[in-house]
Amino acid sequence: MSKPLGNALIGQSGGPTAVINQSLVGIVEKLAGDPRVKHVFGAVHGIRGVLEDKLVDLGKEKRSVLEAVARTPCAALRSVRKKPSREECERILTALRRRDVRCFFYIGGNDSAETAFILDEIAVEQHYDVRLFHVPKTIDNDLCETDHCPGYGSAARFVAQAIQGDDQDNRSLPGIKIDVVMGRHAGWLTAASVLARTYEGAGPHLVYVPERVFDLGRFADDVERTYRKWGRCLVAVSEGVHGPDGKTIVESREKDSHGNVQLSGSGALGDLLADEVKKRLAPRLGDKLRVRADTFGYLQRSFAGLISEVDAKEAREVGRFAAEKALEGRVKHGSISIVRRKKKEYSADLKVSELGKVAKVTRPLDEEFIAGENDIAPGFLDYALPLVGRLPRIGLLSDHPVPML
Amino acid sequence: MSKPLGNALIGQSGGPTAVINQSLVGIVEKLAGDPRVKHVFGAVHGIRGVLEDKLVDLGKEKRSVLEAVARTPCAALRSVRKKPSREECERILTALRRRDVRCFFYIGGNDSAETAFILDEIAVEQHYDVRLFHVPKTIDNDLCETDHCPGYGSAARFVAQAIQGDDQDNRSLPGIKIDVVMGRHAGWLTAASVLARTYEGAGPHLVYVPERVFDLGRFADDVERTYRKWGRCLVAVSEGVHGPDGKTIVESREKDSHGNVQLSGSGALGDLLADEVKKRLAPRLGDKLRVRADTFGYLQRSFAGLISEVDAKEAREVGRFAAEKALEGRVKHGSISIVRRKKKEYSADLKVSELGKVAKVTRPLDEEFIAGENDIAPGFLDYALPLVGRLPRIGLLSDHPVPML
Repeated sequence: MSKPLGNALIGQSGGPTAVINQSLVGIVEKLAGDPRVKHVFGAVHGIRGVLEDKLVDLGKEKRSVLEAVARTPCAALRSVRKKPSREECERILTALRRRDVRCFFYIGGNDSAETAFILDEIAVEQHYDVRLFHVPKTIDNDLCETDHCPGYGSAARFVAQAIQGDDQDNRSLPGIKIDVVMGRHAGWLTAASVLARTYEGAGPHLVYVPERVFDLGRFADDVERTYRKWGRCLVAVSEGVHGPDGKTIVESREKDSHGNVQLSGSGALGDLLADEVKKRLAPRLGDKLRVRADTFGYLQRSFAGLISEVDAKEAREVGRFAAEKALEGRVKHGSISIVRRKKKEYSADLKVSELGKVAKVTRPLDEEFIAGENDIAPGFLDYALPLVGRLPRIGLLSDHPVPML
Repeated sequence: MSKPLGNALIGQSGGPTAVINQSLVGIVEKLAGDPRVKHVFGAVHGIRGVLEDKLVDLGKEKRSVLEAVARTPCAALRSVRKKPSREECERILTALRRRDVRCFFYIGGNDSAETAFILDEIAVEQHYDVRLFHVPKTIDNDLCETDHCPGYGSAARFVAQAIQGDDQDNRSLPGIKIDVVMGRHAGWLTAASVLARTYEGAGPHLVYVPERVFDLGRFADDVERTYRKWGRCLVAVSEGVHGPDGKTIVESREKDSHGNVQLSGSGALGDLLADEVKKRLAPRLGDKLRVRADTFGYLQRSFAGLISEVDAKEAREVGRFAAEKALEGRVKHGSISIVRRKKKEYSADLKVSELGKVAKVTRPLDEEFIAGENDIAPGFLDYALPLVGRLPRIGLLSDHPVPML
């Protein structure tokens, strides 16, 4: 009945999200106080903390502290960018054994799933009984086997609200505006920009994702066409867009550099695109053409006080579910996946997927959600809106005309 | 008693804010339905709309539309970046006369105050009876005669929440992070970053405003000292910081360029600082030193759904007050100022200031709010917090220690 399970250990890994601590707290609240679990440890800076034996006692945290932590963005246990080698994984398993850790939870992306996968292989070889669960988080939404990832809904909400505002900005002071959104390999977050389209003529007018080959000439033509139609143009573009050779636009430009655009740094892609548009279109659209770029940067993954409530709730439940499965012990390892129910009203179930199916692999934006070379298909709205929640209402004047004198 | 006042006209000018439409709606709701006012017109794109006679009838807007507009960022009437010449001001006045405009409201910064000032001069010369009011708005908070500007509180809130989140990001994955905040001539918005300091060791650890001369060498030393103390360093820096010659850091670097940093574009300052820090400190702090910059960009002035409620309320009241004063007619022209009451609990009164005292002039961050070369004084918190409102609570784990094995 209550067979002892030794100690539990939790780590957080990779880039922050707004709700990664919800999953942490979900795990802790299920484990702390369970008679089968002796201690609930947290590893400071993920596997680095495991290797260096830098642990904290999460079982001693007060309920009120945990609740505040759950609403705070970024890894409360601190994170790490480290993909351990097999040799390091062996050292990690040794560390787990020394601490009598029988349940290990790693909250992270597909690299973390891979770490859990390798740890499991070693544990089996060594006949060490440990339950290993990968708890998904990523703003990129690029994990396999799951309908979506905890962390995505909140980041998508940030992007949608940012674009809603920037669209009004662009409408106030018309010009060409290019917004660069995170996502090196998948266009999920950039796609969320279309949630901002709530009225006729609203931006983003053009959307570019890494799932399509990007061509500078075609881009400039798209922008020109849009500008001639609407008198302005708002663009959302993934940081990872690339040419037919797979090289990013900035990398390709490095080879045949002839301008003075920046070749590295935070604003590189946006500035390169703005420069190119200006150079190509100003002769036709006028020298006073306003062209400007912004790169949303880290704010997308860490902005305080801006979450999707559905995302927060699901991130918590994913953590709880992982802890329950570990306590049950019927499945000894896996990655938690979200399964969307096929109903009109959004709801979801959780399941355990095989670690090997989540490890390493990146899931691109579904083909059905991409429209042509520069847009997102309407079906994406049904996918994304329930995850993001209701957005601020944009009010426009009716512009009741006054006949000219 | 109800002497007819002809028509009223409202325009919006300059960069957007999150609450500029609150002021617009405040004016409209006081004027529409007043028996003295025949029509309430809006000029599309500010004085450009006046010059081109592109007007809309704001009196016909439904209450529900106006309320939605009030909660929407950026200029609902569309804005303009145009400082009219004296000759253009004469044409504007001619346009006002043709439309029998007897009350003109210009919502904007100190350039808009100057436009109103010149229009008033011409109206007096021509014996044309028109009431001219400047309604302040700016995220920069750099207008004279007022305690603060509508629009500042919401932008400051955005910056504070962005820094709260980025501080957690930097704590999760330690390194050196440089955040570039809007403000070419005044440090008010950058100063708001310190509202994010809610626990011991919280960032921003260093704050640089344009009111102090910026020195790259001293900057690198500051960063090194902070990094050695806290194992990380979060910097907030105004886009307008400059050397002793008044040239911005990016301009100065253009002269003696020896790196491959970008010399223009959206990320130029942040990338230059990151590059410089890396070059100077990596030899001492290690090659793996993470240095990265973000430039907050337009999001600061336009992000949808993120406002300070106090700011929204005051922006509305400033509009209403301007309309009331215009209807009263005891003062025929002026700029609306906010006067903070000297009480423990924040409250404020409104008054009319002379246009000439607000026109053109930029108000720098008060000296009393600057601490040394790289920080903001504690007194600034008392100034800014009531304008920004309660910020999200940041929860940290207590880190109950687990003795090492």
